[in-house]
Amino acid sequence: MRIGIIGSGVVGQTLGAKLAERSHDVVLGTRNPANTGEKRGYGASLGEWVKATGNRAKVGTFADAAAHGEVVINASKGDAAVAALELAGRDHLAGKILIDVGNPLDFSKGMPPTLTVCNTDSLGEQIQRVFPDVKVVKTLNTVNCDVMVDPGRVANGDHHLFVSGNDASAKQQVIAWLKDWFGWKEIIDLGDITTARGTEMVLPLWIRLMGALGTPFFNYKVVR
Amino acid sequence: MRIGIIGSGVVGQTLGAKLAERSHDVVLGTRNPANTGEKRGYGASLGEWVKATGNRAKVGTFADAAAHGEVVINASKGDAAVAALELAGRDHLAGKILIDVGNPLDFSKGMPPTLTVCNTDSLGEQIQRVFPDVKVVKTLNTVNCDVMVDPGRVANGDHHLFVSGNDASAKQQVIAWLKDWFGWKEIIDLGDITTARGTEMVLPLWIRLMGALGTPFFNYKVVR
Repeated sequence: MRIGIIGSGVVGQTLGAKLAERSHDVVLGTRNPANTGEKRGYGASLGEWVKATGNRAKVGTFADAAAHGEVVINASKGDAAVAALELAGRDHLAGKILIDVGNPLDFSKGMPPTLTVCNTDSLGEQIQRVFPDVKVVKTLNTVNCDVMVDPGRVANGDHHLFVSGNDASAKQQVIAWLKDWFGWKEIIDLGDITTARGTEMVLPLWIRLMGALGTPFFNYKVVR
Repeated sequence: MRIGIIGSGVVGQTLGAKLAERSHDVVLGTRNPANTGEKRGYGASLGEWVKATGNRAKVGTFADAAAHGEVVINASKGDAAVAALELAGRDHLAGKILIDVGNPLDFSKGMPPTLTVCNTDSLGEQIQRVFPDVKVVKTLNTVNCDVMVDPGRVANGDHHLFVSGNDASAKQQVIAWLKDWFGWKEIIDLGDITTARGTEMVLPLWIRLMGALGTPFFNYKVVR
């Protein structure tokens, strides 16, 4: 299917490469698509990334990606997400499912990061408020991006993902996609988009666990 | 051993009853020990509680409990914890390990509760700042009180607890006690007391999971 990704850092690149490998028609949206040479943080340069997908995926503007996608994924930096989605264009997003994988991390004061929004609000809710005619589904934000696309690399995939969103059928669709695209097995529907506060606020524990365990390749399994 | 518990709600009662059952010498600290008849929220009246321990445990003031304990447990309501510990008395706490199981939940605006402090601070840090000569170890706050004292009731005890604190030997001592007192198997040391932000900020997810799963009897297992 046609998938647009907003954000070309390591998270967007990892999601896009896996979706292209699974034969989806991917456009990775970036602020300046002409900048193909510069390395992107923990990711590759955009030129290297396209090459690594066997030239199956394309790079475009945020608006190109949003217009292209039957579904759009927000993988932009938390504090820049609403602005990036404004650039992507309300008309290009209207009526679509937007899978929000972002976390509102603030690294400006050093490590460990704090959250730019939490407790009484969340990034997922902010996006839903600014784009009321988009079906925002918050998910995948509780794991490292390599685990997002390959849950089997941790404990044979026997661990949990969460979804939050106001539209029940959109959540069911996203759950089906996550199983099909990446092989997720266990996905818990937490409720409406306000439940995104819960999964975004897990990040401070996630970061400390990464330090204690010495690896980003872990996840939570909810046991009873 | 002699254990003082600050707070006589359901959490303090549950911890105290189990510790008395395990032959420890428990004083449960409460604001007004003469009030033995009134039911305590989700807990019993203090008279019923003492009777249920086979009269092995005692009820006293916060100061009685703190003076009594070789170790002191804070099980008071999050937003009242510092005031309760002030009443318990600095001199009675000085130099001791204080196991803080509290969460800074604010129910005043209805359900779901928010946190009175988070992101750049935590209840564990607040207590450590106000009582600098106490060895604060934050733990147990990520599970329901019935699971605190009986981890085996969830998935045969195969799940994780976390500790946060500035004093490494105090944390090791608390880990040993948690294994001995309640049968905990897997306890992860997250680091200094600032890591209490991580475990306290899990509460919003915990509350939503309780709703989604329909039970408070669950926990997280960290898998790799």
